[in-house]
Amino acid sequence: MARRQANSSLHEFALIRGLQQRFGRRAPGLITSIGDDAAVIATSAAAWWHVTTDVLAEGIHFDMTSAGPESIGYRAAMANLSDIAAMGATPRFLLVSLAIPKKLNQSYIYKVYEGLMKACRRHDTTLIGGDTSASRNSLFVNIILIGSTMRRRALFRHGAKVGDQIYVSGTLGDSHAGLRLLASQRTARSSRKKKILVSPSHRRFLIDRHFHPTARVAEGQWLNHERLASAAMDLSDGLSGDLRHLCESSRVGAAVEIDHLPISEACRAYAQAVGVSPSQLALTGGEDYELLFTASPSKHRKIAQQARARGYHVTCIGTIRPKRFGIRLSSQGRTLPLPNTSYEHFQ
Amino acid sequence: MARRQANSSLHEFALIRGLQQRFGRRAPGLITSIGDDAAVIATSAAAWWHVTTDVLAEGIHFDMTSAGPESIGYRAAMANLSDIAAMGATPRFLLVSLAIPKKLNQSYIYKVYEGLMKACRRHDTTLIGGDTSASRNSLFVNIILIGSTMRRRALFRHGAKVGDQIYVSGTLGDSHAGLRLLASQRTARSSRKKKILVSPSHRRFLIDRHFHPTARVAEGQWLNHERLASAAMDLSDGLSGDLRHLCESSRVGAAVEIDHLPISEACRAYAQAVGVSPSQLALTGGEDYELLFTASPSKHRKIAQQARARGYHVTCIGTIRPKRFGIRLSSQGRTLPLPNTSYEHFQ
Repeated sequence: MARRQANSSLHEFALIRGLQQRFGRRAPGLITSIGDDAAVIATSAAAWWHVTTDVLAEGIHFDMTSAGPESIGYRAAMANLSDIAAMGATPRFLLVSLAIPKKLNQSYIYKVYEGLMKACRRHDTTLIGGDTSASRNSLFVNIILIGSTMRRRALFRHGAKVGDQIYVSGTLGDSHAGLRLLASQRTARSSRKKKILVSPSHRRFLIDRHFHPTARVAEGQWLNHERLASAAMDLSDGLSGDLRHLCESSRVGAAVEIDHLPISEACRAYAQAVGVSPSQLALTGGEDYELLFTASPSKHRKIAQQARARGYHVTCIGTIRPKRFGIRLSSQGRTLPLPNTSYEHFQ
Repeated sequence: MARRQANSSLHEFALIRGLQQRFGRRAPGLITSIGDDAAVIATSAAAWWHVTTDVLAEGIHFDMTSAGPESIGYRAAMANLSDIAAMGATPRFLLVSLAIPKKLNQSYIYKVYEGLMKACRRHDTTLIGGDTSASRNSLFVNIILIGSTMRRRALFRHGAKVGDQIYVSGTLGDSHAGLRLLASQRTARSSRKKKILVSPSHRRFLIDRHFHPTARVAEGQWLNHERLASAAMDLSDGLSGDLRHLCESSRVGAAVEIDHLPISEACRAYAQAVGVSPSQLALTGGEDYELLFTASPSKHRKIAQQARARGYHVTCIGTIRPKRFGIRLSSQGRTLPLPNTSYEHFQ
């Protein structure tokens, strides 16, 4: 279950916590419900099934003036594939519901599906159903993704232990930089303001990272099969918010080395052009769909070696600390508390 | 997968058929995908899992000026429970996604959940996850329901054979009559027109059938366990449209005895008050969430006896005919083709 904070009037975290308390209950075969990346169900003596769902709303998660239908579909599927990746599971089946406003014709909807299927094909995932409805104003996309693991073999948010190292896959902040570049292009076009000065190749890279993020499915399966990670989740709301969720679930604190955050050259160039610190982008930019995971220091060498051998990009960014330590950032010996910011999706 | 036709610009049936052809494919463990009430997956040597999803949009499937939050949640859950009932499955787990406009506060959202949970509790179904998002204008509710059956033991739309008898559960047209009564109350209030003359108890009955429909879960399980039905689906779009789907899936025709359609006293009173034929309401009114099923004539006695013993209300309304016969209505010896109408949800 991804948690989005785009509705300031709604205090979604409190809502989810309230729902957990009021309606969460045990049921035969139910391993994990409200609160992790996916709900986990024991479907047989050998297998666990993982079910995740995400709703994407026009004007909140995507903007049809800059995002084409194919990328809307692609990103929607990837957001859910990423939740399944964070469980260490194999994605299997996808269902999609669309609420479609009259302004969109059938060929547009086909393109949304083409994007969905492009993402699914990369991970051998099959479209098995869904629903469509009219919508008065806006397009809504709801994805359901079902994945599987072996029984008792999955990654959860709640397993991080004091002393574990904290890792992320890939680079952080690219998607958000890409989104801001797209927004500045629109503003520049309408108000004849100057475009942000970033080289065309960096611009293409960042915008592509926004439109075509990569769910780290193979990395999640590797961490799970090799029993390398003690906890994992995917980065959809930005490291700052998501690390907080992982620490809350695991009842621990964390120290993050700002200077270790993996930031692409393109994202650094963008940060410089707009005069913000690259680490700020890396901490708060959402929709990277990278993995955040923790592992015992005894696994550090194995993780580094195997990641290199398999061509996976993982970076150690800090250490799990006791809960009373809080979540703190450190840089060159100085530490400060992690700012309590969370990512606002396109709005 | 319920199919809704509320968007005239979208020809949803053609869309779904196109998607089936373009994206439908086989996958290990996949029994049925796009096109039945639920997708069916073999999850173990002993069990099949059934997954269904429905999207409900404000202004299309519900109207917040007449429907309270509790009934919006209740109906959304029942629509999906009904899809699971039509497979003869046991409902198990529910996920819910909401896209929430700023006009709604947290207590409203809780009431939607209360309605959902009230429906789920009746069928021992557990809320295991979901997602929430902001929405610019309208409320959207997307439900995912997971049910289970024994392996190779489920009801499908495609099993009807020539000579089989056609049955429905409950009474037809009540929900639509209730909806029209609600609409006329609003019109009467705003324009001082006369209210439709239906007794208060009939009015209450019809409006309650609209706000609190009953998914025929026990009936579906009975038909499945006792191997009584050759095909089944639930009535969400109205008998006229849904029988057409069942016949298409089974590649057969049908003869329906208009005079046998089960119509409640309240619905007859409503029809008389507004000067329409009750059978017209029964044929085209949607959202009854009754079961439509077919069975070999050799089962007729067993069905009648067991239904009586268990307190289930089922009515034989016609016979499956060869495809070339088409779908025809008959009354007192005269027959005419089934009108090609389909139900428009609230709009």
